[in-house]
Amino acid sequence: MRDVCVVGLGLIGGSFLRAVSKPERSVWGATTSEMDAKTAASNGFDVDTDVDGALRKAAERDAIIVLAVPLPAVEAVLRQVARVAPQCLLTDVTSVKAPILDAVRAISPQLRYVGGHPMAGTADSGWAAGKAELFTGAAWVLGVERDTDLGDWKEIARLVLEIGAHVVPLPAASHDETVARISHLPHLLAAILASIGAEGGPLAMSLAAGSYTDGTRVAGTRPELVAAMTEGNKAALLPILDEALGRLGAARGSLASTGGLIATIKDGHKGAEMLLAARENNRASVRIELTEANAWERLQDLGERGGRITAVDATSAHGEI
Amino acid sequence: MRDVCVVGLGLIGGSFLRAVSKPERSVWGATTSEMDAKTAASNGFDVDTDVDGALRKAAERDAIIVLAVPLPAVEAVLRQVARVAPQCLLTDVTSVKAPILDAVRAISPQLRYVGGHPMAGTADSGWAAGKAELFTGAAWVLGVERDTDLGDWKEIARLVLEIGAHVVPLPAASHDETVARISHLPHLLAAILASIGAEGGPLAMSLAAGSYTDGTRVAGTRPELVAAMTEGNKAALLPILDEALGRLGAARGSLASTGGLIATIKDGHKGAEMLLAARENNRASVRIELTEANAWERLQDLGERGGRITAVDATSAHGEI
Repeated sequence: MRDVCVVGLGLIGGSFLRAVSKPERSVWGATTSEMDAKTAASNGFDVDTDVDGALRKAAERDAIIVLAVPLPAVEAVLRQVARVAPQCLLTDVTSVKAPILDAVRAISPQLRYVGGHPMAGTADSGWAAGKAELFTGAAWVLGVERDTDLGDWKEIARLVLEIGAHVVPLPAASHDETVARISHLPHLLAAILASIGAEGGPLAMSLAAGSYTDGTRVAGTRPELVAAMTEGNKAALLPILDEALGRLGAARGSLASTGGLIATIKDGHKGAEMLLAARENNRASVRIELTEANAWERLQDLGERGGRITAVDATSAHGEI
Repeated sequence: MRDVCVVGLGLIGGSFLRAVSKPERSVWGATTSEMDAKTAASNGFDVDTDVDGALRKAAERDAIIVLAVPLPAVEAVLRQVARVAPQCLLTDVTSVKAPILDAVRAISPQLRYVGGHPMAGTADSGWAAGKAELFTGAAWVLGVERDTDLGDWKEIARLVLEIGAHVVPLPAASHDETVARISHLPHLLAAILASIGAEGGPLAMSLAAGSYTDGTRVAGTRPELVAAMTEGNKAALLPILDEALGRLGAARGSLASTGGLIATIKDGHKGAEMLLAARENNRASVRIELTEANAWERLQDLGERGGRITAVDATSAHGEI
């Protein structure tokens, strides 16, 4: 059981450090936030503010390094890893995948990197908000490209499965396009709705009921976090924003001309039913031999079709779709 | 205690009929839905499919008439009322107010009409979905115009307060503009988000988490209901859709040019905080003498500023803001 070094100890990194801690494994972390480091240490974890030291220790012990720093800090830490611990197996939890993969390739193509993104979180942030159970049952995207070392991939997958998440194998581009649809666009629409509601003043707040409360809930998330994840996914998000502008503009045009909105509304209703149907449990089992030449393609295909990996053994991955 | 005749017995009309039923008051209803009429009658209520008969009985007994038919059916029933029961005090529960007020004035300016709109509902519809407690604690808009008879207004307000709702006095135009912001726009944004999510296929459904689920929840509402309420509020909804297009377009432009979304996101965050602040309970009491010449203006002002009427007595209305 390989040791684990976590860099960045906010909500996700802090929850991960807690989740992977067990007697038979050394686990340590570092964060530049003195407050998070102090609280984590006082909670009994091996944590301080010396990122370089933590990475050197990872190199000595051949630990897995988990990058859980905010997106704008990733490149600098990648350079540190390339300098201090270039042999270590490396993953991250950042909410975009293609820009990180590009950065890894630009900084040091030799790094053994498997990108990750847990689809879990709360509106809170920082070490204090974390908990070991945060990832139970959550989807955790793990990047698979044509050149991904599936031995490395399997080792990260095993760690993620160990803490209760399900692995969704995906190429970076699919991940980024999909989170633009189902996470970044919802955050921006919630912000826009909350701004337009606020323009209506106290009267609007007094009449606001379920549709408004539901539609604006994530607008309460810390703005810096939402900005980092949406701005960091610019390339994938722009066409999704255009799709939203197109649909909203078409609805506006239809209302102004024929007076009809039923096409927009029926499309949305179909979408709502699709989500419900996807959550019904009627999945088939899948087994993928990781030693076969096209295994990377089969993994990608499983993820693209909405499937998940739920277990790995010595030579294969077991999933459902 | 005046008798009550309810025309239209879906979710709102059916809940209202149940809520106002008590031993010391005669309550009856009519609906063109044979299924709703049959179920309501089998539940022990005085209900059938003879709308004309129900209105004639209202005229004989000087009952309050409550119009709870779908928006597209309102004009036809208003004509029936004008023909059969023109002296009766009349209210409605339709989700737009200016178009109904215009229709009343066009059909018969003599009708004693006070427009109403309860801000309550569920995604379900029909008599079977109704319940007497639906309106407990809900805001119930009651129209106040310069020429509104405040004696009539007070009588409808008393009925609404009796069933547990709070009265928000508003001119029709303010109502329509505000529901476009906090109800009709949220429904359309939810539909658009659900369509864009669905375009992402099973992968998008598999990665969808809280922001998507919250943002698309009301897209599950019956499309015909959402179409009727949004299309019926066309005049007020168009400028709100333009506001949404403007804000979304500005966000898109900013992301494409400077890469920044923080202005959009911070505006939304402020809006989310405004809703939370409005729900903290630190309200002041207000008393409005309904016999004073400017009472209509004071009522409108209370509503516009986010206040509610919580009681009425012989000559005054008591509220909080």
